[in-house]
Amino acid sequence: MNALSIRDIQQGLATGEFSAQELARLTLAKIEQSNPDINAFTEITAPRLLQEAANIDERRARGETLPPLAGVPYAVKNLFDIKGVTTLAGAELFSKQPPASADAFAIKQLSAAGAMLSGALNMDAYAYGFTTENSHYGATRNPHDFARIAGGSSGGSAAAVAAGMVNFTLGTDTNGSIRVPASLCGVFGLKPTFGRLSRSGSQPFVASLDHIGPLALSVDDLAQVYDALQGIDPADHFQSARSMESVANQLEQATHLRCAVLGGFFEEWCDVDAKNAVTQVAHTLEALECITLPEAELARSAAFLLSAAEGGNHYLPALREQAERFEINSRERLLAGAMTPSAWYTQAQRFRTWFRDKTLPIFDDFDVLIAPATPCSATLIGQQTMRINGTDLPVKASMGMLTQPISFLGLPVVTVPLMTASGTPIGVQLIAPPWREDICLRAAHRLEIQGMLAGKITR
Amino acid sequence: MNALSIRDIQQGLATGEFSAQELARLTLAKIEQSNPDINAFTEITAPRLLQEAANIDERRARGETLPPLAGVPYAVKNLFDIKGVTTLAGAELFSKQPPASADAFAIKQLSAAGAMLSGALNMDAYAYGFTTENSHYGATRNPHDFARIAGGSSGGSAAAVAAGMVNFTLGTDTNGSIRVPASLCGVFGLKPTFGRLSRSGSQPFVASLDHIGPLALSVDDLAQVYDALQGIDPADHFQSARSMESVANQLEQATHLRCAVLGGFFEEWCDVDAKNAVTQVAHTLEALECITLPEAELARSAAFLLSAAEGGNHYLPALREQAERFEINSRERLLAGAMTPSAWYTQAQRFRTWFRDKTLPIFDDFDVLIAPATPCSATLIGQQTMRINGTDLPVKASMGMLTQPISFLGLPVVTVPLMTASGTPIGVQLIAPPWREDICLRAAHRLEIQGMLAGKITR
Repeated sequence: MNALSIRDIQQGLATGEFSAQELARLTLAKIEQSNPDINAFTEITAPRLLQEAANIDERRARGETLPPLAGVPYAVKNLFDIKGVTTLAGAELFSKQPPASADAFAIKQLSAAGAMLSGALNMDAYAYGFTTENSHYGATRNPHDFARIAGGSSGGSAAAVAAGMVNFTLGTDTNGSIRVPASLCGVFGLKPTFGRLSRSGSQPFVASLDHIGPLALSVDDLAQVYDALQGIDPADHFQSARSMESVANQLEQATHLRCAVLGGFFEEWCDVDAKNAVTQVAHTLEALECITLPEAELARSAAFLLSAAEGGNHYLPALREQAERFEINSRERLLAGAMTPSAWYTQAQRFRTWFRDKTLPIFDDFDVLIAPATPCSATLIGQQTMRINGTDLPVKASMGMLTQPISFLGLPVVTVPLMTASGTPIGVQLIAPPWREDICLRAAHRLEIQGMLAGKITR
Repeated sequence: MNALSIRDIQQGLATGEFSAQELARLTLAKIEQSNPDINAFTEITAPRLLQEAANIDERRARGETLPPLAGVPYAVKNLFDIKGVTTLAGAELFSKQPPASADAFAIKQLSAAGAMLSGALNMDAYAYGFTTENSHYGATRNPHDFARIAGGSSGGSAAAVAAGMVNFTLGTDTNGSIRVPASLCGVFGLKPTFGRLSRSGSQPFVASLDHIGPLALSVDDLAQVYDALQGIDPADHFQSARSMESVANQLEQATHLRCAVLGGFFEEWCDVDAKNAVTQVAHTLEALECITLPEAELARSAAFLLSAAEGGNHYLPALREQAERFEINSRERLLAGAMTPSAWYTQAQRFRTWFRDKTLPIFDDFDVLIAPATPCSATLIGQQTMRINGTDLPVKASMGMLTQPISFLGLPVVTVPLMTASGTPIGVQLIAPPWREDICLRAAHRLEIQGMLAGKITR
């Protein structure tokens, strides 16, 4: 059922081939079947899903024109407020908090577009991690191989889509938390430009780096969800996009895209599977040149520093009161972050300006930059290190090393899924200039119609 | 001579009443006469002044239409780059640096407008202080009473104008460094909206709080200089104003201004002279209501914290290498600032957003907010404490306590000079909504034409 695309659902509801309530019941059945193995959902909002489906069917019965995402089942990372549900942000710390009194801005947008919410999804606690090995809510397992990680921090969001439990999900990406699990689970993910989509009603982690975005099984689905998410929210001070333009209808635009591969840091710190995936994408997009970002490794360090410092600031009151309730994988990092000298923090912000200045002119010559999304495909749950570039790297910290410098720049990225020779998924980042989500979506669409991207899991 | 207004100079040059070179020579004579008592100048750029004057006179001889500030003598705080002069930023630390290779952006704007640069002016080291008691370059003395401070950190900028050595000056204001000396020296000062004027080529102190702005002897002069300073500088990342509109021609606009007095913190922490000045201004501007900003005292603390942290970050490499060369009044503050936990710094930035949210809606109901610029008039040079609100406050830290919460908001402010009963000047802040420099200048102009503001010193 959820192998249906959004356009399939639009058509099926229009022709009466199925009802929204049938889709909702199939969704619940699929979740019931798959979730015990995968552990993607931390909350299933069945009554809401069924009620939203009934509303859609009533509107159909009245002959109304349905909004674009009518009847499309989805779920959200459990750091988005869902009215009536406690917002966990992956943390036991929040489990006794009262339920949210209102939906997050993004959920309101999706509700207005007719989408049907099925639940909340597992993640690394506080969105601070790249593996979704949550010490309290358990690891989310990769639908392609239950022994492997789904990636993080939006691991539940990627796994739920990959397993076909819902058509799309929402995740967040601070340092790679949409792109890493999309890569490891073999789905599409969009990290929009920093400031593009409102974050209101999502649990903050790093104010100057947090983004929200969708994950889906096709570029068209991704673009349609992104279109529904666009909207101005006066309550979000970091939102700076004020123009909105539908991108779903631009995917087939035939303009030439000037593409280049990112070399240096991005070429060194990945294995042969990731290199092969980049090579295939580069070949199809006719990317002949290789570009090196100056000081990409420093950018990664600076992103780490901002994350620890702002995350540490955010959680400091709770760390003072009840440090023992914190996720063991993050507690010391947050404490150290809070105590980082402010001189380091301001230096990282100053370096960020320098790095943007040095980097953005590349887009005078190129429309799309290509880089691996992860250094390798999914590692085993519990695996501590991975060998990359002749070095044993800690998995939890390093799975996002190729995404961090890009979100530090705030650039829009679509991650497209490919398959390695051994049959595990791996993602490639398509990076566009600020505010040009349309470009990276178009590039992804071109790859998709060449049939070179990972197919869906049979379901 | 410098009792001439800018319009007097425009007219005098047009009619041939005097030449630019005569104005330049008179300026040098006046500096020679007054500066030994006042210690406003750290560098007199006589050759440049005379050359710029000669250029103006040549253009006059050719019958060219002169730019608006043609022949107007000015000087700049010694943290602005002057081509061929070492930029001191008030610090012995920089005294052996090579001369600047180019003028600051603001000086280029003024040169293009025809103004004639006479030199660089004394300040608190690194712009970190409110008294211009510089341990290396000496205290700048108040032209109204040589035993008293000129205020700081743009003390030389205020004193040079008050003494009539030049028609206007440039200062900078991070926490009050234009408004405090303008208040204590009895001149007009404009701190524009944060992000309005380019800071390129001025020595940075606190990136997220630094502003540049003019000081002058009349509102019309201030507005004309401000107009000349407006301009887009792609090199300044903090500049966010993209529309420019001449304000000098709007001063007499007759629209009603809805004015209110700031109470609470701003009413408590000032003496009877400051209160009287506010009362006079409020009466003339028909400000009947009193508004209280929530947590103004916290805003001041947060501004202190950002200043110490960003200033500390900026000077940390030099502090590591040669701490012994640092201004003794600032060294420990900068070191402590650099080591401030980043959690405090980010909390201060987050509070800033909160404070803006709570405060800016006041401008739905009011156009101008009125507050004292300093808690009292000028204290004695060397005086350590001043008694305000029944409390002995440290002069160096507290003279800016009423300006700090306002620059923390980034709002445009004109400081207007009044006279206390004892004949010392004191300033009042006229605060307008973001980007509305025109409004506070218009309010100042109304006070000026009522004849209620401090007269010029006879010269």
